[in-house]
Amino acid sequence: MIDFFNVKTVEEARTALLSALVNAGSGSFSGALPKMSVDLLSASGRVLSIDVVSPEDVPPYPRSTVDGYAVAARDTHGSTESLPAMLSIVEDIPMGAMPSRRLSSGQASRIPTGGMLPEGADACVMVEHTDLMDGTTVLVQKPAAAGENVVQQGEDVRCGQTVLRAGRVLTPFDLGALAALGFTSVPVVERPTVAVISTGDEIVAPGERVLPGQVRDINTYSLASALESTGARPLVLGIAKDTYISLRDLVEKGLSCADAVVVSGGSSVGARDVAVKVFEDLGPPGVVVHGVAVKPGKPVILGVCRGKPVFGLPGHPVSALVALDLFVRYAMNALTAATAGGQDVLLQLSAAQETWVTARLGRNLSSAPGREDHVRVRLVSKDGTLIAEPVLGKSGLISTMVRSDGEVVVPQESEGLIEGSVVRVRLPRF
Amino acid sequence: MIDFFNVKTVEEARTALLSALVNAGSGSFSGALPKMSVDLLSASGRVLSIDVVSPEDVPPYPRSTVDGYAVAARDTHGSTESLPAMLSIVEDIPMGAMPSRRLSSGQASRIPTGGMLPEGADACVMVEHTDLMDGTTVLVQKPAAAGENVVQQGEDVRCGQTVLRAGRVLTPFDLGALAALGFTSVPVVERPTVAVISTGDEIVAPGERVLPGQVRDINTYSLASALESTGARPLVLGIAKDTYISLRDLVEKGLSCADAVVVSGGSSVGARDVAVKVFEDLGPPGVVVHGVAVKPGKPVILGVCRGKPVFGLPGHPVSALVALDLFVRYAMNALTAATAGGQDVLLQLSAAQETWVTARLGRNLSSAPGREDHVRVRLVSKDGTLIAEPVLGKSGLISTMVRSDGEVVVPQESEGLIEGSVVRVRLPRF
Repeated sequence: MIDFFNVKTVEEARTALLSALVNAGSGSFSGALPKMSVDLLSASGRVLSIDVVSPEDVPPYPRSTVDGYAVAARDTHGSTESLPAMLSIVEDIPMGAMPSRRLSSGQASRIPTGGMLPEGADACVMVEHTDLMDGTTVLVQKPAAAGENVVQQGEDVRCGQTVLRAGRVLTPFDLGALAALGFTSVPVVERPTVAVISTGDEIVAPGERVLPGQVRDINTYSLASALESTGARPLVLGIAKDTYISLRDLVEKGLSCADAVVVSGGSSVGARDVAVKVFEDLGPPGVVVHGVAVKPGKPVILGVCRGKPVFGLPGHPVSALVALDLFVRYAMNALTAATAGGQDVLLQLSAAQETWVTARLGRNLSSAPGREDHVRVRLVSKDGTLIAEPVLGKSGLISTMVRSDGEVVVPQESEGLIEGSVVRVRLPRF
Repeated sequence: MIDFFNVKTVEEARTALLSALVNAGSGSFSGALPKMSVDLLSASGRVLSIDVVSPEDVPPYPRSTVDGYAVAARDTHGSTESLPAMLSIVEDIPMGAMPSRRLSSGQASRIPTGGMLPEGADACVMVEHTDLMDGTTVLVQKPAAAGENVVQQGEDVRCGQTVLRAGRVLTPFDLGALAALGFTSVPVVERPTVAVISTGDEIVAPGERVLPGQVRDINTYSLASALESTGARPLVLGIAKDTYISLRDLVEKGLSCADAVVVSGGSSVGARDVAVKVFEDLGPPGVVVHGVAVKPGKPVILGVCRGKPVFGLPGHPVSALVALDLFVRYAMNALTAATAGGQDVLLQLSAAQETWVTARLGRNLSSAPGREDHVRVRLVSKDGTLIAEPVLGKSGLISTMVRSDGEVVVPQESEGLIEGSVVRVRLPRF
């Protein structure tokens, strides 16, 4: 068993967990996820599992960027308002169809924005710089350079160009790009399934009668919905008693049908010992990290059982959510990234899921050096300045949960932050 | 018909749309949404439709915050390590059950973290500040103040206290709080349904064969998934031709089965005229705003038809997404907020959906005064500083879409921003 007081930093703990997962998989990630194909309309937020290479030039032909006339640039050279170039109109190019006429010298065709340039044309003139002499002749009052007001074939994307890399979290912009390239479905990484277990002899489900001394299960609900927002699929397994056999049964069930197992609680030392014992017995390696230099979240347990990551989170609901955000999200991103094609996309994934705002601290915050403090804050706007007010209090169970908007992280080397200093507030992505 | 050049600011345009919706509803919001009840595990991100009042005190009884001994504080007064208070242990209070023994003077009970205090006790002593003399006697080496290491009944939340207000976008923290109060389901506002229509004679669906002069439908996919991420339910109606009858058919279909209608494209002036005519004929009031002082997005049309908001977005995919974010999201939030219980929750909703990061501008940006410019940027980290690099280019259709991380807003009164200045970058919530 690992010394509880031999705590690791957040970074060390993450690295230790990933190393253990790689070792369990004999050099590559153990438990990498399946790949699947989803309809384009359901793909937002999913993780791309292949590099997307354009199968064609975009645009596939030269297009006009204006409403006006397609011309040969040389036919307009030297033209002015007083001495316009006189061109005969040979066609009205419709939207959505090919031009039917090739331009010869001295000719022009009417073209709408997005219209396809006819052969013989290399520029477009805006309708505002022309005058219609009669139905068949247009006066061009300004010279056009070759390529002016035209998007060339392949100028946006060349055939064979990589447009999106594996591991990308798909946005509506990306889906638009995929539609433009003719994709109707898209290969993605399957979402990881995470089993959720609450523990504690005193815990009862919210719908049940609460006897004196008992409390309702909070963590199943807060952790499951936080997991959902990280892109994982929560699998609720219920409440284990603080006994070895009760917890082991549920953890084994989780390992058999999910990609990871999250256990939260109980609040007593005895309950924590039970979780450690269960994880150890389901190893090797079992427990990998026991205790991290972070507050709240210090008593967190990270492990690998039967090749899958397991997490023992604190029983306190806010602490459990902080620990989930720091470690479970990280590990699920790593698994997803490994499935998509390697470690290099891991950073993009993590960065995409951390959002910070800048604010001024509303009061002094002290912190023990050697420990990373996550302090829940409420954001308040005062005279146009965003103030981060720490939400504190020993009793802050529900009240801390519902009154805060994000957290200020006091770095490990800091002894605290003073009132009025500029701080970055991390917003929960969930 | 409204003068296209008589453009409004973003704020004016939003206000005009909301006023028209209120007028259409005879003083209250027209088309307010239904309310419904959802299971707690599915409620993340949903909008609460009632004020949640606590039905009980939390905690419902005084609880210990430490592992140790429940005592009467007065029994420990004056105790030190050399002169400890000697108390007889009368009980081992189990987790999840009521204490069976009342403490008399000189007595203590063992208590776990979270355990219920017995009658006669008003404080808890940490096990670290005690010494066990024998199985039945404990030495307390430090005086406890009344209330020390105890969370009093109702200290977190009082019975009858309002815990969450109607209009709140529920987070995992909130769901934890609701579970703690015994809720297994939660009343929320139904998500608005938004019909999505692409227009253009040149537009074909991504799965179809593209003939010369045609382009694939991008906006149905990018707009539908952006709508999904704003909390709305997109209803894809397909592609309308640039004719009055074709567009009117689809808009009427949308009005009959959705809470709002979004039309995008076409890129030509003629197509825009068709949308204006359809909206006008389905009024009054029909078109409310035509043209907004914002780039991209200027040619946007906002209207109210048959009591429901309708939107004519630009055909350019990036412009359409910017306009959707500025106006459709805003209007859907307003409808949702009005349903939940009034205007006052609107700000919370909007604020929750705007996230900004601070960066330094990577190059000069010029802007016409009188117009709010939204410039797509890519975020790059250089020597620890976040740089916002504008992503420009006339041809930037797909490339602009997939290469940018957010946008810098150049305010209406500004003539531009210089390289190196500190800018706020708005991240898309979708």
